Amino acid sequence: MNEFMQAALEEARKSLAEGGVPIGSVLVHRSRIVGRGHNQRHQQGSVILHAEMAALEDAGRQPASFYREAVIYTTLSPCPMCSGAILLYGIPRVVIGENRSFLGDEAHLEASGVSLEVMDDSYCREMMKAFISEHPELWNEDIGE
Amino acid sequence: MNEFMQAALEEARKSLAEGGVPIGSVLVHRSRIVGRGHNQRHQQGSVILHAEMAALEDAGRQPASFYREAVIYTTLSPCPMCSGAILLYGIPRVVIGENRSFLGDEAHLEASGVSLEVMDDSYCREMMKAFISEHPELWNEDIGE
Repeated sequence: MNEFMQAALEEARKSLAEGGVPIGSVLVHRSRIVGRGHNQRHQQGSVILHAEMAALEDAGRQPASFYREAVIYTTLSPCPMCSGAILLYGIPRVVIGENRSFLGDEAHLEASGVSLEVMDDSYCREMMKAFISEHPELWNEDIGE
Repeated sequence: MNEFMQAALEEARKSLAEGGVPIGSVLVHRSRIVGRGHNQRHQQGSVILHAEMAALEDAGRQPASFYREAVIYTTLSPCPMCSGAILLYGIPRVVIGENRSFLGDEAHLEASGVSLEVMDDSYCREMMKAFISEHPELWNEDIGE
């Protein structure tokens, strides 16, 4: 696994250790991690701090040109909200740990010209599968179901 | 103007008074305001707290059934991120103050079955027009341009 997905996975593990939804993300600019974060529904009671949103917030205010050279790594397929944030800022590339546990708005991202890479990582998959099985209410709330 | 758009506009005015982007939003559930907020880019240095996101966050964690009975009011057409959040939570109806200063991802919302009402309010329009003219850098940053 590459170092950036590894960092996203570390974020997911942190969340799991805190009793939260185990999804992590890092924002990478010119091969350097500039923002990292994990889901904060359980921890902060947040309905908007999904992993990708937390990573974007962690990177802080940036000019448009910055995002155009960025790549976002996330352990799970980005939901419609996170996909929309990626489109708002014009991030051209998304690397996804897996999309079997949950398929986000990949179609809208691709139709909008965003390049997607799905790693189909077995560790990411097993972590989500176990979490969804153990905490279905928290998981369903997080995806609006 | 109806009372809910009036409340969204009050949020926008608060933001303007704080030196921020003058966009406000309220989340309404069964004819009661349950969340309100305004853009926090200038005030908190946030890249994710657009008005609609702030209103959703203010309403706190809710079950899916709650959002299905909600309406979100916003003084300006919702950007791709905010549109994605509306889709994530399955909010069926969006009332928009105006969409001439900025046209968000209304096409994606409508294609996904969300009901939109655009009030084309002259006060909302003039407020945004003046702000964009006076603070083009802050505005462009907020829409990823």
